[in-house]
Amino acid sequence: MTKSPEDEHPQKVFGWAARDSSGILSPFTFSRRGNGDDDVTVKVLFCGVCHTDLHAVRNEWGFTNYPVVPGHEIVGVVSNIGKNVKKFKVGDRVGAGVIVGSCRKCESCRQDLENYCPRMIFTYNALDHDGTKTYGGYSDMIIVDQHFVVRIPDNMPLDAGAPLLCAGITVYSPMKYYGMTEPGKHLGVAGLGGLGHVAVKIGKAFGLKVTVISASPKKESEAIDRLGADAFLVTTDPAKLKAAMGTMDYIIDTISAVHPLAPLLGLLKMSGKLVTVGLPEKPLELPIFPLVLGRKLVGGSDIGGMKETQEMLDFCAKHNIVADIELIRMDYINTAMERLSKSDVRYRFVIDVANSLSRY
Amino acid sequence: MTKSPEDEHPQKVFGWAARDSSGILSPFTFSRRGNGDDDVTVKVLFCGVCHTDLHAVRNEWGFTNYPVVPGHEIVGVVSNIGKNVKKFKVGDRVGAGVIVGSCRKCESCRQDLENYCPRMIFTYNALDHDGTKTYGGYSDMIIVDQHFVVRIPDNMPLDAGAPLLCAGITVYSPMKYYGMTEPGKHLGVAGLGGLGHVAVKIGKAFGLKVTVISASPKKESEAIDRLGADAFLVTTDPAKLKAAMGTMDYIIDTISAVHPLAPLLGLLKMSGKLVTVGLPEKPLELPIFPLVLGRKLVGGSDIGGMKETQEMLDFCAKHNIVADIELIRMDYINTAMERLSKSDVRYRFVIDVANSLSRY
Repeated sequence: MTKSPEDEHPQKVFGWAARDSSGILSPFTFSRRGNGDDDVTVKVLFCGVCHTDLHAVRNEWGFTNYPVVPGHEIVGVVSNIGKNVKKFKVGDRVGAGVIVGSCRKCESCRQDLENYCPRMIFTYNALDHDGTKTYGGYSDMIIVDQHFVVRIPDNMPLDAGAPLLCAGITVYSPMKYYGMTEPGKHLGVAGLGGLGHVAVKIGKAFGLKVTVISASPKKESEAIDRLGADAFLVTTDPAKLKAAMGTMDYIIDTISAVHPLAPLLGLLKMSGKLVTVGLPEKPLELPIFPLVLGRKLVGGSDIGGMKETQEMLDFCAKHNIVADIELIRMDYINTAMERLSKSDVRYRFVIDVANSLSRY
Repeated sequence: MTKSPEDEHPQKVFGWAARDSSGILSPFTFSRRGNGDDDVTVKVLFCGVCHTDLHAVRNEWGFTNYPVVPGHEIVGVVSNIGKNVKKFKVGDRVGAGVIVGSCRKCESCRQDLENYCPRMIFTYNALDHDGTKTYGGYSDMIIVDQHFVVRIPDNMPLDAGAPLLCAGITVYSPMKYYGMTEPGKHLGVAGLGGLGHVAVKIGKAFGLKVTVISASPKKESEAIDRLGADAFLVTTDPAKLKAAMGTMDYIIDTISAVHPLAPLLGLLKMSGKLVTVGLPEKPLELPIFPLVLGRKLVGGSDIGGMKETQEMLDFCAKHNIVADIELIRMDYINTAMERLSKSDVRYRFVIDVANSLSRY
């Protein structure tokens, strides 16, 4: 007989879960495995609210397995370690991100690209090695193999650092892989949400000129005054768009809705690179002439490997980069999800898990 | 008063031109400039028939300026040089390709990428620096600035070498730029025409495993037995296509018709690269999930710069690579164009200009 989430493992855990596609979250008691030899138990202090969480609780991608406890921007302190764990000790400030497991043997894993492993295990709404479901960071504790735990640098605030575990690595990794870090080059950041606002900061830290590309003219002053972008380009003004054609070396496209690629390709210089990290559910129209005649490329990228996630955190700590967050209590999550669905947040909700996770 | 093509320049030239969108070519007398200080006069011996020539004579891209003398895979011997020309002497075996001029000052030109210069001058159907029209290699002589003349290596046959000046560099350049040359890696070549068949040979010379991807099962034996491909994948067989998913590191897509990218992206491994060198006139559908989840890229590339064209010729000479050609007489060109429009050629028509250009 299949055991209930509460009874299948020895350690009791408390969190909030969505039970159906209404996406409404409510208190939920479940369990996690005992701390294994290679495991790190993390007392969760803060957890970022990623747009993926919203997709998941509402089953918008069609593969949600309810009940689902979301959350993959998890920070906290180590409360237990297995006997093989040398990298961490009880009390350390650590984080866990989008993935908690992979095969560790395939070509991707051997290249420190666990994020592209075909057997990669998502932090929630997935099956763990033992066949039981994974539950995320909207909960009081989580147990993670040490390989998938990162250290939060000493000078990084835990709450505002949490979103870097998804939003940060998702924009940092492609900038490194596609060679979009040459100081003085011009980076366009399309879309100014959770990912986009971190991309602006990381782009500036690499010494790039950064232009925010957005359909919302009201974001101009924030992009420049608050986030430090060098320029703002509103895509709804054809004259300004035309004037900016052929001026950018790279574009990070964080827009997850279906949108035209042609204007973005037009903004690129010869040999320019457009990298998309959003996941529009339908194919986009790709005009071939600008690609061929300007030797441009369109690439994709998905989060990053564990080694690079640590590198990104260290880079952000060095450059004092964190996310701009709105700290919320757990019982505000359903309102937060509503607001997130309307992009009404600057720029990431983070749940104050330790201080607000309530059973009542 | 505008002078006629026959009278505007001092040197009389004879070739074949199309006069209207019927695309029918017929004898045509025109003129070229005197040989300038930096110029090389080339007595044309052979000229390849590129698919672009067919588009141009029929005005299929909408910008043909009749009369048009096509031909941009031109080889011959030097018959005159200007006083600044040190690289070439009379009698040298040389070639001229797709471009005969550029600004020589812009960022692209400074990087030896004259092919991406905004003021790049096509060998035919374009305006030269002096505002007069350019005419291509279906003619008895051509005058080209020495910078845009390349040397045909001694051991390379002129007739079968001619197509390398467009087809060769068009596939060689992206393989170098996008890093598709690592020995042992697996290259897919989509489409087996003028470009594709050269891509197979160059891929093999780089030490790659090469699979031809084609919708025509009848091309299998040729691809393997005649061209030396390692494998053949017919795209119309869903089972074979499925079995090949995730097996290729790179794909060069030479298909110029509108076609789906999704199956090609599916054939790529993680971090695989799909480079298109064809020019479908309509946008293609680009599915984003495989791009993001597999960190794949779709790039474009257009011919190559002069320095790299010479490098490619030297590479091909070293590896005994030439095109597979069908040598034709000038007066066969209209039949050849008809056959080319049906892909009925293995794999490039080359006109025996010196021995067959007739005024009658």
